[in-house]
Amino acid sequence: MDPCTSTLLTDLYQLTMAQSYVEHGMEEPAVFEFFVRTMPPTRGFFIAAGLEQLVDYLEHMRVQSWELDWMRKSGRFSQAFVEYMERFRFTGHLHAMPEGTIFFAHEPIVRITAPLPQAQLVETRLINLLQYQTLVASKAARAVLAAQGAPLIDFGLRRAHGAEAGLLAARASYLAGFHGSATVLAASLFDIPVFGTMAHAFIQAHIKEVEAFEHFAESHPGNVILLIDTYQTEEGAKKVVALAPRLRRKGITIKGVRLDSGDLAAHAVQVRRILDEGGLPEVKITASGNLDEYAIQQLRAAQAPIDFFAVGTKMTVSADVPYLDCAYKLQEYAGRPCRKKSEGKATWPGRKQVYRHYSADGRIEGDVLTCEDDTQQTGEPLLQPIMEAGKRLHDLPPLTQLREYTATQLARLPERLRALERGATLEVTVSSALQQLARDVDAQLW
Amino acid sequence: MDPCTSTLLTDLYQLTMAQSYVEHGMEEPAVFEFFVRTMPPTRGFFIAAGLEQLVDYLEHMRVQSWELDWMRKSGRFSQAFVEYMERFRFTGHLHAMPEGTIFFAHEPIVRITAPLPQAQLVETRLINLLQYQTLVASKAARAVLAAQGAPLIDFGLRRAHGAEAGLLAARASYLAGFHGSATVLAASLFDIPVFGTMAHAFIQAHIKEVEAFEHFAESHPGNVILLIDTYQTEEGAKKVVALAPRLRRKGITIKGVRLDSGDLAAHAVQVRRILDEGGLPEVKITASGNLDEYAIQQLRAAQAPIDFFAVGTKMTVSADVPYLDCAYKLQEYAGRPCRKKSEGKATWPGRKQVYRHYSADGRIEGDVLTCEDDTQQTGEPLLQPIMEAGKRLHDLPPLTQLREYTATQLARLPERLRALERGATLEVTVSSALQQLARDVDAQLW
Repeated sequence: MDPCTSTLLTDLYQLTMAQSYVEHGMEEPAVFEFFVRTMPPTRGFFIAAGLEQLVDYLEHMRVQSWELDWMRKSGRFSQAFVEYMERFRFTGHLHAMPEGTIFFAHEPIVRITAPLPQAQLVETRLINLLQYQTLVASKAARAVLAAQGAPLIDFGLRRAHGAEAGLLAARASYLAGFHGSATVLAASLFDIPVFGTMAHAFIQAHIKEVEAFEHFAESHPGNVILLIDTYQTEEGAKKVVALAPRLRRKGITIKGVRLDSGDLAAHAVQVRRILDEGGLPEVKITASGNLDEYAIQQLRAAQAPIDFFAVGTKMTVSADVPYLDCAYKLQEYAGRPCRKKSEGKATWPGRKQVYRHYSADGRIEGDVLTCEDDTQQTGEPLLQPIMEAGKRLHDLPPLTQLREYTATQLARLPERLRALERGATLEVTVSSALQQLARDVDAQLW
Repeated sequence: MDPCTSTLLTDLYQLTMAQSYVEHGMEEPAVFEFFVRTMPPTRGFFIAAGLEQLVDYLEHMRVQSWELDWMRKSGRFSQAFVEYMERFRFTGHLHAMPEGTIFFAHEPIVRITAPLPQAQLVETRLINLLQYQTLVASKAARAVLAAQGAPLIDFGLRRAHGAEAGLLAARASYLAGFHGSATVLAASLFDIPVFGTMAHAFIQAHIKEVEAFEHFAESHPGNVILLIDTYQTEEGAKKVVALAPRLRRKGITIKGVRLDSGDLAAHAVQVRRILDEGGLPEVKITASGNLDEYAIQQLRAAQAPIDFFAVGTKMTVSADVPYLDCAYKLQEYAGRPCRKKSEGKATWPGRKQVYRHYSADGRIEGDVLTCEDDTQQTGEPLLQPIMEAGKRLHDLPPLTQLREYTATQLARLPERLRALERGATLEVTVSSALQQLARDVDAQLW
């Protein structure tokens, strides 16, 4: 049983509401939009991600026979509704910002237009898929900016929240500009470059540290990256220098060393000196251990001689912002725009479009949130048609292309939105057309 | 492809290290232990969780043919190692604290004893499974304590980090004492009681709020819980009162209302008064929206008339502590105890046991961390044999029994460890035998 594809991976109320919609003949087109309500204090921008997994999910949504059995046995659903679910297919339309697009609070990044029970039933998994990759891509993009060109590797699988998170964090961080991941499954499924060295256990299992280095080099002559902090970092570096000629005689070149503890900047300086003086200027230094965009910024500012940064847990769980204040809200039903008015959670009604404007240097200048049928707007419309009648309109771009697109997006970020600490964000302009629609809807409420 | 069961859901270095172990004949028994290094400031205790999923994983670990194909195509592994992986079975032993056991920093909750390549290869997924459920169970237990007996429901699936996290959060929170979950798949897989009401979209899709209430009641006459905050909470409550007699004539009883926004304590007081004065004292109030143990504590202190608390995102991502400083470390190889000395990350060597002592009132008084073969200790040994030679020794207890055990564990928590804010924790005593072993190991290092 794969939870990632189960139709029962949803909230009970999606099923109970859908039954009530079906029973009352409420199957007219509904428009839902997914957006983030507020920017966290430390986020100047978000990177849209997760669309490909969402489209896959919607195209292949089928209720399995064991799921139908559970529904029957639960006693919660009518026979007619179980039969509805047996025939269930997603036949709706989907508009979205391409993955990798920069966006801000209130801007829908996905819009679903489908018969109401369908649009409702997909809610839980849609949020589950879009939030997580957007969260990680946005966090990872900050590390990419902080690294100023130094390559970053995802090491986060072990402390990700479950299997799918670990896998999708590799994808989202690669999309955002990471160089690769340690996660093997991400390499095999998404063709993401895979990296790895050795763990402390490998060193400890050998009686002598240098014997561990030598064994590893013999087994993987093309990928000799040695972990040197198990006992004492600089001593480890000296052993690498002593070992290098012996390996060279066997035709093996040491590619790098990894530091994983202590004051990484200070150790990197010492280790670089030991390696250089030992005739190993080509050996690269990888740093890992509790890294995030803040630590990377400091290490870069200190000009620590670190060639690769391995970023794990703090990115994979987006430690400083572990969730987004996001929602998937009904904006229109049967041609009638609608709006939630709950305190602190009010939404802009109707189906919408976002138009982006750029300054002369190509940087993002401002966004306008407006009604989809507002013909007065100029600028670049960000939401594009992706699926029609339950099928993708064309192949989605390969991940490498999305990664290039994301890089061009980051290049268009104005300086003020790049700050890692509490910084500026972009306040989206709400068009007068949309403001008028909200007033019209309010006048007709209840 | 189910990522939860793929053997390639691992770090590359597990595979590269395993190949080197196999090539160098290093297949002697290794002992690894999983533990948390430090207590986060806001955690006085942890609840061990995730063992059942780990045992399932280890028993069924098989490398699929597409995974072997990927290994071959990658060019990174020897033919002999690919063949080793084709035959791979986990044949080791596992000791663990039962799920639901309270534990503290430095205490192993799982110990693996297996040929070194096996014990190494399981590391990534072992941490991935144990950390997440332990994180959520520990967070959820705090909410259970704060609720002082009021029932709690897990609403967190949508903002969980992926599919497996959402599913396992339902399990971990139920283990910790939650009443149930909104996640349907958790009901069908783990037999967890499932709960649900309606979303704002359901209200909005109807032109009149009261019509939405009525439609839902007709479709689910046995489960009428109405969401009343879509437009204005107290107005929603008045509509419920007006609707009740009409539904009663159809034989339908309103069970509850849900509040999801604004000042929950103030709204609950108003809504309770409206319901009581309207002759509906039996209608229960459920509160949701951004709840966690801190908010629940405040609502209880304010004596808000809330009957059920629905807890979502902040528990599922463990928002204030989204990861644990946990590790799975080699403690012994081929009969030789070993130890990692990296700065800030040193470990206690050897295979260990934890003995717990209780005060006269049955509360936890202190724990002793010692060598497994230390015969001088009294107290309750917490690590128990679970698997032998790759198979579970007996069935693991059903989830309901684990939930009862967790409740008895929480009852044994001393008052000082129950504080939600920065509070006390229990400093584990390291036995003199273990301290001596550490000195012996240090004397022999390198």
